[in-house]
Amino acid sequence: MKARVHVMLKNGVLDPQGEAVRHALGAMGFEGVEGVRQGKVIELDLAETDTARAEKTVTEMCEKLLANTVIESYRVELV
Amino acid sequence: MKARVHVMLKNGVLDPQGEAVRHALGAMGFEGVEGVRQGKVIELDLAETDTARAEKTVTEMCEKLLANTVIESYRVELV
Repeated sequence: MKARVHVMLKNGVLDPQGEAVRHALGAMGFEGVEGVRQGKVIELDLAETDTARAEKTVTEMCEKLLANTVIESYRVELV
Repeated sequence: MKARVHVMLKNGVLDPQGEAVRHALGAMGFEGVEGVRQGKVIELDLAETDTARAEKTVTEMCEKLLANTVIESYRVELV
């Protein structure tokens, strides 16, 4: 079973990477870019085949390692 | 209009970040993690309201700046 985890900085947390991308796009002539946020996506190949158990395990991975829950939010998607 | 871009290393390109995550998960006692790939997700707020034009612009942004198409693949999603 495959799981995809999206980790984004929470709203209100400064995102210098996203800001750099926004500036670069503006400098390259792309207009109308009002905001950019950059995050991580982590794709996991799991041996687990039960959806509920896989979701529980991946959520635990996020809480313990994949996301810094003080400043980041995460979303788990099973595919 | 919002656009979300997923940028992942192509298959066959070594992903040391993903490997590091896989090792760390193993060391923390999570079993059955067969592979981990880590990529980027970039969320763009666009002034553009036309879906076709927005998709075309974002694809151009990916080709020129957001992805290194030699080693990375990207996927554009309008939300």
